[in-house]
Amino acid sequence: MSNPQFTYSHTTSTETSTLSIRRNTIAGATIKAQLDQLKWTGRYDCFELKWKPVYDQEYNWPVPPHLFWDSDLGKWVEGACYFLTEKYDADIDAAVKYIVTTIRNAQQEDGYLNLHYTMVEPGKRWTNLRDMHELYNCGHLIEGALAHHKYYQNKDFLGPIEKYVSLIRKVFGPGKDQRHGYSGHPEIELALLRLYRVTGNQDAYDLARYFLEERGKPTGQEGMFYFDWEQIHLRGENPYMRPDHYPKRFSRWYGQSQQPILEQETCEGHSVRLMYLLVAAADMVALAREGDQKLANVAQWQEAITRLWDNMVDKKMYLTGGIGAMPQWEGFGIDYFLPPGTDEGGCYAETCASVGAMMLAERLLSVDLHARYADVMELCLYNNVMTAMSLDGRAFTYVNQLASSDTHKSRREDWFEVSCCPPNLIRVFGTLGGYLWQFGGSEGEAYVNVHLYTNAKLSFTVDDKEVTLEQQSNWPWDGDISFQLSGASAIKTTIRLRIPGWARGKYTLSPAPSSSSAAALEKNGYLVLKPDYITTNPTFTLVVHGFEPRYISPHPYTGQHTVTLARGPVVYCVEDADNPWETNHFKDVAIRPGSAVTEERRVLESAGGLYVALHSVCWKRNMGGWASKTAGQEPGAEWGGPVLGQERTLTFVPYYFRANRGGEGHMRVGLLRA
Amino acid sequence: MSNPQFTYSHTTSTETSTLSIRRNTIAGATIKAQLDQLKWTGRYDCFELKWKPVYDQEYNWPVPPHLFWDSDLGKWVEGACYFLTEKYDADIDAAVKYIVTTIRNAQQEDGYLNLHYTMVEPGKRWTNLRDMHELYNCGHLIEGALAHHKYYQNKDFLGPIEKYVSLIRKVFGPGKDQRHGYSGHPEIELALLRLYRVTGNQDAYDLARYFLEERGKPTGQEGMFYFDWEQIHLRGENPYMRPDHYPKRFSRWYGQSQQPILEQETCEGHSVRLMYLLVAAADMVALAREGDQKLANVAQWQEAITRLWDNMVDKKMYLTGGIGAMPQWEGFGIDYFLPPGTDEGGCYAETCASVGAMMLAERLLSVDLHARYADVMELCLYNNVMTAMSLDGRAFTYVNQLASSDTHKSRREDWFEVSCCPPNLIRVFGTLGGYLWQFGGSEGEAYVNVHLYTNAKLSFTVDDKEVTLEQQSNWPWDGDISFQLSGASAIKTTIRLRIPGWARGKYTLSPAPSSSSAAALEKNGYLVLKPDYITTNPTFTLVVHGFEPRYISPHPYTGQHTVTLARGPVVYCVEDADNPWETNHFKDVAIRPGSAVTEERRVLESAGGLYVALHSVCWKRNMGGWASKTAGQEPGAEWGGPVLGQERTLTFVPYYFRANRGGEGHMRVGLLRA
Repeated sequence: MSNPQFTYSHTTSTETSTLSIRRNTIAGATIKAQLDQLKWTGRYDCFELKWKPVYDQEYNWPVPPHLFWDSDLGKWVEGACYFLTEKYDADIDAAVKYIVTTIRNAQQEDGYLNLHYTMVEPGKRWTNLRDMHELYNCGHLIEGALAHHKYYQNKDFLGPIEKYVSLIRKVFGPGKDQRHGYSGHPEIELALLRLYRVTGNQDAYDLARYFLEERGKPTGQEGMFYFDWEQIHLRGENPYMRPDHYPKRFSRWYGQSQQPILEQETCEGHSVRLMYLLVAAADMVALAREGDQKLANVAQWQEAITRLWDNMVDKKMYLTGGIGAMPQWEGFGIDYFLPPGTDEGGCYAETCASVGAMMLAERLLSVDLHARYADVMELCLYNNVMTAMSLDGRAFTYVNQLASSDTHKSRREDWFEVSCCPPNLIRVFGTLGGYLWQFGGSEGEAYVNVHLYTNAKLSFTVDDKEVTLEQQSNWPWDGDISFQLSGASAIKTTIRLRIPGWARGKYTLSPAPSSSSAAALEKNGYLVLKPDYITTNPTFTLVVHGFEPRYISPHPYTGQHTVTLARGPVVYCVEDADNPWETNHFKDVAIRPGSAVTEERRVLESAGGLYVALHSVCWKRNMGGWASKTAGQEPGAEWGGPVLGQERTLTFVPYYFRANRGGEGHMRVGLLRA
Repeated sequence: MSNPQFTYSHTTSTETSTLSIRRNTIAGATIKAQLDQLKWTGRYDCFELKWKPVYDQEYNWPVPPHLFWDSDLGKWVEGACYFLTEKYDADIDAAVKYIVTTIRNAQQEDGYLNLHYTMVEPGKRWTNLRDMHELYNCGHLIEGALAHHKYYQNKDFLGPIEKYVSLIRKVFGPGKDQRHGYSGHPEIELALLRLYRVTGNQDAYDLARYFLEERGKPTGQEGMFYFDWEQIHLRGENPYMRPDHYPKRFSRWYGQSQQPILEQETCEGHSVRLMYLLVAAADMVALAREGDQKLANVAQWQEAITRLWDNMVDKKMYLTGGIGAMPQWEGFGIDYFLPPGTDEGGCYAETCASVGAMMLAERLLSVDLHARYADVMELCLYNNVMTAMSLDGRAFTYVNQLASSDTHKSRREDWFEVSCCPPNLIRVFGTLGGYLWQFGGSEGEAYVNVHLYTNAKLSFTVDDKEVTLEQQSNWPWDGDISFQLSGASAIKTTIRLRIPGWARGKYTLSPAPSSSSAAALEKNGYLVLKPDYITTNPTFTLVVHGFEPRYISPHPYTGQHTVTLARGPVVYCVEDADNPWETNHFKDVAIRPGSAVTEERRVLESAGGLYVALHSVCWKRNMGGWASKTAGQEPGAEWGGPVLGQERTLTFVPYYFRANRGGEGHMRVGLLRA
C-alpha cells in the first residue's frame, strides 16, 4: 500500500512541464488565495468557538452553511503541508500552526471534535450520520493531521485526532451497546486506513473495516437500515421528509447504503461518496494482499471494486473523465445516460469526483497493475481535474459540464459555499509525485511502475541503497520520454512503462532490446524492461506513438451523436474565445470524423508554455423540416440531411483551457457528427 | 362553446371504419369489462359506506389506494351514459342507477360528497387540496352527472352534485372567510364550466373562474402560495416532507401552481393536470368570445394557452402525440428532452395526457380554427390514445413509451391501482362524434368545420331545419372522402375541410370549383367550400394527398438520432411479433431515410379490417471501437461508420397495434438513423 500521500515526497520536479507549471501556480498563488477565502468567510478562526452570525443562517436543510468548515480547514492544512515540504512560506506555516492550535483547543474532554455539534447543536452528536458529515469531517481532520505529522514531525495535530478516533471506535461497532452506523459521506474510511498505515493504530483499522463491512446492511440497527432507523427512531422524522437531493423517500443509493458494498452491481448515487468509499475498500484489499491484515474474502472485495470500476468507466464516465450525470444528487444516472450539459438533461462531473477516480485508479494499480486504470487516471488529471482551476490558480469550477448553455455558461468562481473542490486541487497536485509511479524493492531487487510521463525524478532506497530514476519529456504534447536510472548498480531493477490505450500498443524503445524477453509489452498494457535490459541501458528512451489528433465518440448507447477531438491524453473543446461567434453554444456546429486536422504549436506561459491547438473544418447543422415549421405544428418532420454547405474552420483547445481567456462562456466538447 | 360531450350525439356511425370498430369494441366489451373491475376491486359499492380492509392500506403517502374511487365511478358512469344513447344494455343501465343511488345516499347534510373524507378521515375535509384529489373527484362526479342528465333526462345525479357545488362555492372564493385555494389536480374547472353551459348555474362559472384566476398566486393565502400555507400552517408539515413525485421541496410546478397561468411560459409538471387546466381556460375564453360571460383580459388568456400549446407541441411532444418525458412526476421534462424509453432516461406519455391534449385541441379549434390543432388531435387519437387499449378492448396501457426495454416491456394490464386511463378511453370514444366536426348556424346560414375523416353522419338544425352531412372514406388508410350534404336547401352552408400538415397543401376536390373564391385553401389549413360551391355540388369528393409512407424524425435538439415511419396520421413501430428476433429491443437496428418502402394491405378484423403494414430495409448497427474494447478501459473510441453490412427487411405496423399479437414485448418507434 503506497498511497500518493505517503510517496509523493520521493519525487522532485526537474524541468518545467505542464504539470510543474500547475504545481508552481498552486504553490505561488492558490494556497494563499484559498487561505484568504478561509479568512474572510469565517472558516479560519471558527475553532476559536465564538458565535458567528452564519450559524443562524439556513441553507439547504438539514445542512447549514458552516457544516463543512472542519473539512475545509483539514483539507487546506493537508494541502499546505504537502507544499511546505517543497517551498517554505512563513505565512503559510503560521496559518497552519494557528489552525491546528485552535482545533486542539476546541477538542472536548472526551475527545469529541466537531464545529457544528460543539457550537450550534451541542448534545445532538451522532444523531444524523446520514446528512451531517460528522464522520466525513473527522476523516479530513485525520488526513490533515497525517500531512501535518509528516511535515512537522510532531503530534500537535495527530495526537488530538487519535484521541478522537479512539472515542469514535467506542461509539461505533458490533457491540450490543454500540451504534451500527457509518458515515453518510464516506471519507473517514480511507483516512483511517492511512492513519493505520502511519501509526499502526489498530482502532483505526478496525473502525474503517467495520464501516466498510457494515455499510448497507438492511437489518443493521434494530432490524432496519441504519439510516432509516436513525431517521425514524432516533430523530422521529417522517420518512417522506428528506433533503432535496433525495428524489424519493429511502433513496438509500444516494449514499451507497442501499445494500452491502460487496453486493452492489452498478455505480449509484453521489459520485464523490462512491469514489472515496471504493478507495478505502481498495486500501483494505491492498493491506490484505500485503499480508498486513487478514481479510478472508479479499478476492470478493477486489471483484466488487473492479465490477464497479468497469461499470463506471464503460457506462457512466464522460469523455473528459467526469462522472455524475445528475445534478440533483451530484451523482450517477442510469447506464449510458451522459448528456453534455444542462439544456440536454444533465451533466455534473464534479471536480472532487474525478479527483476520487484518480485516487481509486492509483489504488487499483497497486493491487492489479493494468494500464486501463492509469489511462483513466491520466484522462481525469489532464481534463476534468485540470479544467477545475484557472490558469492563474485563483478561480475554480465545481461542476464541469461538456457543453455550456444559457443557464450554465462556462465560468469560474473564486470560492463556493460548499467548497470541497478548491482544496482538493491543492491536495491532488501536492501529492502528484505519488501518482506518477509506484516503486519498491528489497533483497537486491527493485521495481518502478511508471504510470504518468512528465519531467521528474524519483529517489528511493532499497537495502539502504539509493535508486534514482529520472524521466524527461514534453508530455502531454509529445511522446518521447528519456529515462535515466542511476545509483545502486548492484540492485536488479525492473521498470514497467505504461503504453496508453490510445497508442494502440505502438511504441519505440531505444536502445532496442536484444531479445523480446528483455523488454516486452504485456497484456496489462505495461512495457516491462527487465533488469537485463536496464543494466545494459540505464539511459533509454521510450517513444509512445499515437499523438496524432483523433476523433473519438462516447458509447453509441449514450445516444450522443457527437464527435470530439483528442490528442494524446488531452481532450479538446471549442470555445468562443478562439472562434467566430455562434449563437447557440456550438450546438448547431457539426464535424465529420476523418476530416483533416491541422496542429498549431502555441505558447502560453500561464498554461505551461507550449501547447497544441487544433483546427478542423466544421459545418452549420441543417435544421431540415424544422427550419420552415410554424409554431405549434405537429412534432416530427423530414430530415434534411446532416449539414448545410456553410463551411468554417474552427479552433480547438484543450478542455482545461476553457474559461481562461475571455469570451462569453460558450464551449462544447462534442460536436454533432456530420 | 361546443364541447364534444354536448355535440357527440349529433353524429352517427355509418359504415365500418377503424374508429367505428373501436367504438363497437368498447360498447361490446370494454364497458362491461371495466364494470367487472369496479366490482371486484370494491369500487362499485363503495358509496354504501361500509368499511373495507383496503381503507387501512398504505399506498404512496399521502395517497391511499382508494383515493380516486369517486372519479373512477364518475368516469365510468359518464362513459357508460354516452354509449347507452347508442346501444341500450339493461345491465349497464342497472349498474349506473345503482351507483348513482349510492352516491346520492352518501351525500352529507350540507352537500359534501367524498368517499375518503367520509369514511377514512372524517373531519379533515379541505386540509390537503394539493394531494388528496378532493376537488378533482368532484369534477369527475360533475361530468358523470352531466352525462347521466343528458341520457336519463332527470336530476337524480345532477341534483345532489349541484348541491355539492354550491357548498364548494361557499368554501372557496375571495371573501375574507373563504379559502383562497384550488385543486392540486385540475379537472373541476372544466367540469364546472360544462355544468354552467348546461344549467346556467352561475356558481359553477364563478367558481371555475376563481380557481383559474387564483391559481399560482404567490401571496394568495395569508401572503403565501396556497399550497405552502396549507402544508405549513394548516397541516403543520415540514416543507421538506413531500410526496415522492415532488423531486424537491416546493416543487410547485408539479401541479402548475408555481405562478399564475397567465404568466407561465413553458409546460411544466404533471401533464394531465396541465391539459385539464388549459381545457378549462380555453372554455373560459370560448364563453367570453361567445359573449356569454365577460372576461376583460380574454386576449391574454388565449395568448397564454396558445403559448403553452406551442411549447408543448414544438418542444415537449413525442412523435406519437405522447406528452410527459419524466416518470417521477408523470410530466414534462425540459425543452426537447424526449428519450424514447426507460433505459434512455425517461418517457411517460400517459394515455390521459393525450386524451387531454385532444380535448384541448378541440377547444382551441372552436376559438382559433387552425389545422395545426386538428393535426395534433388526430395524431394523439390514432397513436398515443389508440395504443392504450388492446384490440379486444379488455386490456390497457397507462404509460406509452416509444421503445421497450428489459425493465419496461411493451405490455398491457387489465386494470391499474390508479385507474384513470381505462375509463378515459370510454369517455373519449363515447364522445368521438364531437371531435369529428364543429358546426352551427342561424338565420339561413350554417357551417361545418370538418376536422377528422371517417364514416359518419352529422345532423343538426338551423332555424328549425335539419342539415345533414355525411362523409364516407377509408381513413386513415386512404385519402378519398365523399361528402353528401342533404336537407335544408334554403340554408347557405359553408363547409371547411382540414388539409393535414403532412399533405403539404395537396388535395383534389371534385367536382372542381368554378372559381378559386368558391373553394380555397386558407392559411389556417382548411379548404373552405363556400355556399356557392355547396349549393351546386351537395355531393363532392375530397382527396387528401400525401399517403405515401414518409420518414420523420423528432426535432434535432432532442438529440434523438432516429427515424420513424409514418403514413397519413398513423405512426409506425417495429415489434418482435412480425420480425426476426433482435436481442436488444431493436436498439441496434438502423434505417436510412429515403430507402424504398413497400406497403402491404392486410386484414385483421379486430383492428377494423384493413390496415397497411410497411416494409423497409434495415441494417445492424456498427458498434465501432466498442466491439473490441475490454471492460473498464477509458471511455470514448473511434466511430466505425453507421452500419454493418448485415441487411434485413423489417415489417412495420401502426404503433397502436403493439402488444396485441403475442411476442416478447420488444418494440420501437424510432430506429437509429443509418
